[in-house]
Amino acid sequence: MPNAPWTGVIPPVCTPLTPDREVDVPSLLRLVDHLVTGGVHGLFVLGSTSEAAYLTDAQRRLVVEAVAAHVGGQLPLLAGAIDMTTPRVLDQVTAVTAAGAQAVVVTAPFYARTHPAEIARHYRAVAAASPVPVLAYDIPVAVRTKLPAEVVLDLAADGVLAGLKDSSGDLAGFRQVVTGARDRRADSGFSVLTGSELLVDAALAMGADGTVPGLGNVDPAGYVRLDRLYRAGDLQGARAEQERLCALFGLVSAGDPARMGPNSSAVGAFKAALHLRGVIDCPVTAEPQVPLSPDEVERVARHLTAAGLL
Amino acid sequence: MPNAPWTGVIPPVCTPLTPDREVDVPSLLRLVDHLVTGGVHGLFVLGSTSEAAYLTDAQRRLVVEAVAAHVGGQLPLLAGAIDMTTPRVLDQVTAVTAAGAQAVVVTAPFYARTHPAEIARHYRAVAAASPVPVLAYDIPVAVRTKLPAEVVLDLAADGVLAGLKDSSGDLAGFRQVVTGARDRRADSGFSVLTGSELLVDAALAMGADGTVPGLGNVDPAGYVRLDRLYRAGDLQGARAEQERLCALFGLVSAGDPARMGPNSSAVGAFKAALHLRGVIDCPVTAEPQVPLSPDEVERVARHLTAAGLL
Amino acid sequence: MPNAPWTGVIPPVCTPLTPDREVDVPSLLRLVDHLVTGGVHGLFVLGSTSEAAYLTDAQRRLVVEAVAAHVGGQLPLLAGAIDMTTPRVLDQVTAVTAAGAQAVVVTAPFYARTHPAEIARHYRAVAAASPVPVLAYDIPVAVRTKLPAEVVLDLAADGVLAGLKDSSGDLAGFRQVVTGARDRRADSGFSVLTGSELLVDAALAMGADGTVPGLGNVDPAGYVRLDRLYRAGDLQGARAEQERLCALFGLVSAGDPARMGPNSSAVGAFKAALHLRGVIDCPVTAEPQVPLSPDEVERVARHLTAAGLL
Amino acid sequence: MPNAPWTGVIPPVCTPLTPDREVDVPSLLRLVDHLVTGGVHGLFVLGSTSEAAYLTDAQRRLVVEAVAAHVGGQLPLLAGAIDMTTPRVLDQVTAVTAAGAQAVVVTAPFYARTHPAEIARHYRAVAAASPVPVLAYDIPVAVRTKLPAEVVLDLAADGVLAGLKDSSGDLAGFRQVVTGARDRRADSGFSVLTGSELLVDAALAMGADGTVPGLGNVDPAGYVRLDRLYRAGDLQGARAEQERLCALFGLVSAGDPARMGPNSSAVGAFKAALHLRGVIDCPVTAEPQVPLSPDEVERVARHLTAAGLL
Repeated sequence: MPNAPWTGVIPPVCTPLTPDREVDVPSLLRLVDHLVTGGVHGLFVLGSTSEAAYLTDAQRRLVVEAVAAHVGGQLPLLAGAIDMTTPRVLDQVTAVTAAGAQAVVVTAPFYARTHPAEIARHYRAVAAASPVPVLAYDIPVAVRTKLPAEVVLDLAADGVLAGLKDSSGDLAGFRQVVTGARDRRADSGFSVLTGSELLVDAALAMGADGTVPGLGNVDPAGYVRLDRLYRAGDLQGARAEQERLCALFGLVSAGDPARMGPNSSAVGAFKAALHLRGVIDCPVTAEPQVPLSPDEVERVARHLTAAGLL
Repeated sequence: MPNAPWTGVIPPVCTPLTPDREVDVPSLLRLVDHLVTGGVHGLFVLGSTSEAAYLTDAQRRLVVEAVAAHVGGQLPLLAGAIDMTTPRVLDQVTAVTAAGAQAVVVTAPFYARTHPAEIARHYRAVAAASPVPVLAYDIPVAVRTKLPAEVVLDLAADGVLAGLKDSSGDLAGFRQVVTGARDRRADSGFSVLTGSELLVDAALAMGADGTVPGLGNVDPAGYVRLDRLYRAGDLQGARAEQERLCALFGLVSAGDPARMGPNSSAVGAFKAALHLRGVIDCPVTAEPQVPLSPDEVERVARHLTAAGLL
Repeated sequence: MPNAPWTGVIPPVCTPLTPDREVDVPSLLRLVDHLVTGGVHGLFVLGSTSEAAYLTDAQRRLVVEAVAAHVGGQLPLLAGAIDMTTPRVLDQVTAVTAAGAQAVVVTAPFYARTHPAEIARHYRAVAAASPVPVLAYDIPVAVRTKLPAEVVLDLAADGVLAGLKDSSGDLAGFRQVVTGARDRRADSGFSVLTGSELLVDAALAMGADGTVPGLGNVDPAGYVRLDRLYRAGDLQGARAEQERLCALFGLVSAGDPARMGPNSSAVGAFKAALHLRGVIDCPVTAEPQVPLSPDEVERVARHLTAAGLL
Repeated sequence: MPNAPWTGVIPPVCTPLTPDREVDVPSLLRLVDHLVTGGVHGLFVLGSTSEAAYLTDAQRRLVVEAVAAHVGGQLPLLAGAIDMTTPRVLDQVTAVTAAGAQAVVVTAPFYARTHPAEIARHYRAVAAASPVPVLAYDIPVAVRTKLPAEVVLDLAADGVLAGLKDSSGDLAGFRQVVTGARDRRADSGFSVLTGSELLVDAALAMGADGTVPGLGNVDPAGYVRLDRLYRAGDLQGARAEQERLCALFGLVSAGDPARMGPNSSAVGAFKAALHLRGVIDCPVTAEPQVPLSPDEVERVARHLTAAGLL
């Protein structure tokens, strides 16, 4: 797949915070080093796992600047430009590219109810104004709209989109984009990336270019191994590694659903794991997320131990 | 209802745009005059009908500053502080209150999946930091979470919330807040406002303090008349006025659902009506909304004619 | 409203069961007597509150036969014909009309995904074959489709539907049917009934012909009083009675949501209340509903006491 | 996987109808022969693709009897026992097993809102009364509830369930059941089957025992080939066959969504294809489904031609 601009493992980078909930830049850079050492092929900052929805504009800018300065072009740097509609996304694109992002990742409009024709119009306007390539971010659990495969493929064919980050969990729709992009793309270059931590082997088997696993923060080397095993043709080995990572993924359910939502639990667990592994100084999550209790952190620790990570 | 801080008709003010989609301040001020002349009791800027989700931060600030300077304390000025989570909402609160808002209207967290405990935590943090009173904005069609009546009532009892703007369409839940607030509030003051244009008479009959009708942009005098008729005890007259407004509301379906989403259609129709009535200069809506076609504008015109407004 | 075939209070009649979950006919007839003594204007058997979804065909037939024989034409007897699609509904219509139902209440297709054109086709086919009038049953929480007001009004204008039982909770859509039917119906006769226990006064104020309150099993006299107060023009009295019934309705939340679904809780609470009031012998609900615990029954009892019913 | 009771390709058998919408037994038996000739490993009658939701009880019984008599134990015969709740499902189980079904396929309760505890209770009651093994049928698009993997695994471990037919499209949840069942099952035997036509290769790669493809009616030999290629270790060949079937699957969108729902379109297209291929006499679907137009049938034909089936 010579034309895919991004391939391999490109984790959405968590945003470590200080106890008073400012961006903890030293921890962030240690996390980046941990990922790079793990062998990842790119970095995606300001995604959902990065708590982009919880960071102020100033914090978002600081994250991109710090990471861009630190990695200095060693590996691709993608940044989310997460906001409700075209005019607000354009402001985000301006900010994150000024701060050093080499590509932007943009969802369908949200809050406002939308329509396929409006989604297409949105991406065309964003791409027309963006100084860097635009990837579509399909994340219905957040924006409540599934990107139709036909819309994505039309925009890819027109050179509007340079890639797709699919966190929809709909592998049949993902396959439609993978095969459609393969059939249609000639010279343009289009990357199809999955955000489904539990289905990386299946996505690669279908022809995915790469993967954007939130759990890759906790175990980057695991996802890199999975990617290598698959590409080397060791499918049984890839499946075994994937199943190990599936078991590890159970840590996202550490938080009691009677006390908190799934975001608090999953991001809280990722940060608790990074703290337990000594990568970041403080596991705090942004407001209004509910913190994990000591018992819940203990559950995270047990998952790490079982996966050989502690 | 001596304790309700806001009562009567408080329309969410549309945001007129120029053809190149900048805020059209002269049109905005003419719209404000049109509303004030119509007899409204307050103004709500940067709500959903105001296309808050489509305005940049600079545009939002300009709207509040222009309206605040124009009305100069004549009548209450509420402003939406619409963003995804607590830290971002706090930035919006700072901006809109600096620009002159006398109260802020805040939704549950969105994009991020949430939980009742997180919603309560969110409002507590926002209210603690806000220099002005905070109203909850219940709009599940946008944020995808229904505010539980019990959560709202607990926050009201604790003085965290000063009111509720309910655009959920769930009149049974609305009634639960109205009666609960009446039973619990002593000295604190709490306003229960409905955003359901088609159910104002019913909401008033249940004890609502006021109404926030998007359609009030088009026919402020109609909603003021409805409010007065109801309060004067002329229930038959109120019902007839409400039914006239229900028929007028049909204009929100002017746009073809095969070509555009419901936001494009409804906001497009409000602006087309304001343009046809000579209140604003240009009916354009923000990107990526799809504009109404001439035929669709003609449908809006027929609704205005039928309602005696053209 | 001379043309409305059904008016007033028409409760959906609970189906008392024996401890081994057979229809308890003596308790059922005592319940009918309790409702008739309470002053109700009709009976609706095999609705959702009747656990129609949980009764076998033999049990359904037995219910209709027993009630028809007992009331002997004293007051109108409506029966649900609840099944997934046209052919299966037609079998239910045949069975319940043979057993004595004077009208049938029919939902949109469910299980199968549907479409407005298919819904219209469904009602046309059912009405063409039914020996008795057909009412549409709008209950999106069960069938997952909202009946579009325009579809209902078209079918009413064509004489296909003789009424609507609206349990959607969407009072704006309900109003559209009420006013639309009033404007269009000439001689045909069409009844618009609300199933929203908490909004009866509002529905009557909009022009509803009657009400089908599940809570009417527990307190039929309350709903009859509310209906009479409203029709006598005592709106304050009606509102006070409605608010008393709203407080009583809190009993539907007696069951712990960690242990059971909302059906188990609500139907379990209605039956517990009827048992506590001495109307039925056994409060058991059909499988696989989870029974209320003694503590949860005690919560029901406290609601009854507060409402002056125990 | 020696313990899986059912493996390979087990298509949900369409139910051919006569022009007056009675079961067309000769066409049904020709369809069965077409499937058996295609090499399938079992038959699933009265599933969603079989229009079970649209067949009367008499028609359902006729289908099972006819197929059971025809295949005479040559290959496993599974039958849906599709109804709303436990008591009604038990009646269906009695009927289809009396008619010759060797296993029953049962959904979670629907129409009635449900809960994981009620779902477990439902399956335990059904299995306790069923004379044949019970498979869970996970089809949220129809019943609106996703079967939680943990509930399925607990019931499998207790011997309540003998298998899962997963039509949820959620391959991550499917994987959780596959790996969980593999880890937990010792002697009991449990079959994990996917109903996702577009993801068969991925499901097999995860460890699925078999597949239940609706599209298998149209091209049984294709799905059998895919199954064989995968099991023979020819993963590239399997993927190519899967991609050919994915393209063919496009026929389910033949129907215009402005005129009909997705059921009418998909089942209508399967039957049109079977009619065009000369397998069944008449492509009619059950009421209230909307028939395909001649143009829409032509679209189906083009898909068949492209796939080499016409």
